[in-house]
Amino acid sequence: MPVKLSAPNPASLLPVKGVKLGFAQAEVRKPNRKDLLVITLPENSAVAGVFTLNRFCAAPVILCKDFLAQKAGIRALLVNTGCANAGTGQEGLNRAKQSCEALGNLLNIRANQILPFSTGVILEPLPVDKVIAGMPAAIENLKEDNWLNAAEAIMTTDIVAKGTSRKINLGGKDVTITGISKGSGMIHPNMATMLGYIATDAAISQAALESVIHHAVNKSFNCITVDGDTSTNDSLIMMATNLAGNAEINENSVDFTLLRDTLTEVAVELAQAIVRDGEGATKFMTVTVEGGKDEAECRKVAYAIAHSPLIKTAFFASDPNLGRILAAIGYAGIDDLDVNNMELYLGNVLVAEKGGRAASYREEQGSAIMKESDILVRVVLNRGKANCTIWTCDFSYDYVKINADYRS
Amino acid sequence: MPVKLSAPNPASLLPVKGVKLGFAQAEVRKPNRKDLLVITLPENSAVAGVFTLNRFCAAPVILCKDFLAQKAGIRALLVNTGCANAGTGQEGLNRAKQSCEALGNLLNIRANQILPFSTGVILEPLPVDKVIAGMPAAIENLKEDNWLNAAEAIMTTDIVAKGTSRKINLGGKDVTITGISKGSGMIHPNMATMLGYIATDAAISQAALESVIHHAVNKSFNCITVDGDTSTNDSLIMMATNLAGNAEINENSVDFTLLRDTLTEVAVELAQAIVRDGEGATKFMTVTVEGGKDEAECRKVAYAIAHSPLIKTAFFASDPNLGRILAAIGYAGIDDLDVNNMELYLGNVLVAEKGGRAASYREEQGSAIMKESDILVRVVLNRGKANCTIWTCDFSYDYVKINADYRS
Repeated sequence: MPVKLSAPNPASLLPVKGVKLGFAQAEVRKPNRKDLLVITLPENSAVAGVFTLNRFCAAPVILCKDFLAQKAGIRALLVNTGCANAGTGQEGLNRAKQSCEALGNLLNIRANQILPFSTGVILEPLPVDKVIAGMPAAIENLKEDNWLNAAEAIMTTDIVAKGTSRKINLGGKDVTITGISKGSGMIHPNMATMLGYIATDAAISQAALESVIHHAVNKSFNCITVDGDTSTNDSLIMMATNLAGNAEINENSVDFTLLRDTLTEVAVELAQAIVRDGEGATKFMTVTVEGGKDEAECRKVAYAIAHSPLIKTAFFASDPNLGRILAAIGYAGIDDLDVNNMELYLGNVLVAEKGGRAASYREEQGSAIMKESDILVRVVLNRGKANCTIWTCDFSYDYVKINADYRS
Repeated sequence: MPVKLSAPNPASLLPVKGVKLGFAQAEVRKPNRKDLLVITLPENSAVAGVFTLNRFCAAPVILCKDFLAQKAGIRALLVNTGCANAGTGQEGLNRAKQSCEALGNLLNIRANQILPFSTGVILEPLPVDKVIAGMPAAIENLKEDNWLNAAEAIMTTDIVAKGTSRKINLGGKDVTITGISKGSGMIHPNMATMLGYIATDAAISQAALESVIHHAVNKSFNCITVDGDTSTNDSLIMMATNLAGNAEINENSVDFTLLRDTLTEVAVELAQAIVRDGEGATKFMTVTVEGGKDEAECRKVAYAIAHSPLIKTAFFASDPNLGRILAAIGYAGIDDLDVNNMELYLGNVLVAEKGGRAASYREEQGSAIMKESDILVRVVLNRGKANCTIWTCDFSYDYVKINADYRS
């Protein structure tokens, strides 16, 4: 079950002026589930994206990058689950294009004004006929008040739908931000099998939106890991419809920081929701590494901890077998790390210092904290001023079950 | 259950002239199990070691390196299970020294002629009194024909004892090589929670033995991974008693290659046995990457595949969900990899080429191979002439169970 996470109340996901969402049951892989999502945007919307760094990136990712670069004015997004259209070569690209052309014909826009997304099984051909056949139904129910349905339509192994909204005031104008995400396995920085869509009706320049998305992704989706795998399809999109009536925000505007930080807050909540719904997760772990020489070495240590199956299974068992954390710090790849000059904390409890167990530490303290569902692991390297924080979950029987059974 | 691996027949583990082994039940952590091993060597033996690169290396590893550097002539090895004596700071070092001093008194040799080893739980103090109390019993049963008992005495979560022998002829003299190993989790290159001891009665110079051990470890223990974790305690020791009567081998001897390759063969068999007995393993996978620009990039790809929990759970399920392998190749970190110019084979079957599924591939072929217990994954990068091979196992419910329950 997800760790302290439930599906959003429908009323809590606020419509964003100009953003319409429609879904369909296209039977891409399985019947009787929402598996197709269409999002439409008004003219003059600003749209920015960040995509997986996987060299085997999926056909739709290649098209998204291409279409964004063409700057034809993005007017719609098309998402299917059930098939990732990755590892599908030239034919995969053809089919992704074909689906954009079909949707363009129905919406009376050009194919390069549509961003396509796919998530699901890799290495299998996209059943493009089913995707196209589902489009009219999705267009039929396009409306602004459809965010929860949209969040449900993009789920794969997710247990709960993920979405959140914020309202802020920019120069006297009310601005809404709503985002949804999906993903629960193959989660790792440089993006995950994760899709995220965050929309606002704020007026913001294209350059400012691109600055915001890179800021936000580095504080959110690039700070989570479930299993260390990096997907072929990860995509985060930010959209701004410019309908709120505020003066256009650029990077020098007084309100830039407020808008950027609120969009980032939404991204963080959506990213953390992915970890809380991590495949088989029973615990949510925050791993903070402080006092590193640079952020890169802090991340090495944090990910060594967050990726260790030995540590993740110990958290699943609520077993304070904390030596496994020391071992991970030791093999993280900092060659000149002085293990006698660092500290390890679990929650607020000092566990290890001077190369060994802290004299003050009692196993009962560790046991008590390990029973909680939200746990902080804090490492102080005492080498410098850099730090980082990442989020991950534990490793359970159900992780194995879900991934052993995923296709069957 | 181990994958095609059973405990060696006692008669198959051949005595090595001059090497005596004795064990005891010292109750380091649990009663009624062999958990202490003493090995003695004659004077003028050559001894070489390779140790974990973990910065949190255990106290006995620190002492081993120190004592080998002192060149006092190693005469004995002392191994305990149940406690790793790692993450134990200065007190851990004191206790490891204390145990060497106690054994030295009993054997009438100096402490720095003894190499200590520990394996088990990290971050807990070594019960040195129990270790010392167990020594007389171990010394009592020291004998040359005790290799299987020795292999059993060093087991932790291992299901079967691991050992193998070879006989070769060097310049008309019969030479014996026998090795044992332990380890089944926390297995990763740069060594594992794995201990390996390989002895021969051949005469070989110290320099030649050191050359051999580095050659052997790079072809064996540094090519295996179970869970990507690197232990604090990994140690491989090669010992040569110089009693076979052959002319001393140096790196220029005609017989050097035969001796080196046979010792390497033993190391490979012991390393593969660790993977075959990997925690919860049901499948043994050989991952070969060919046609890389250099060995380093081949290893990146091989380990991305071997460490992916998604791939390992798919192998556990016998599910040819091979897109996960493409995804791992894509995120392995070769920035200029042309995914349209590589091939993926499962066994002899071409699965993917030109960036997608091979036209000739049929799911039934993949399904048939996935049902086997020994599986070859072969990636051809078509970028150069380098290659590498590593061995790993799948990821099962039992892996989680073993590691969630390990301390209880």
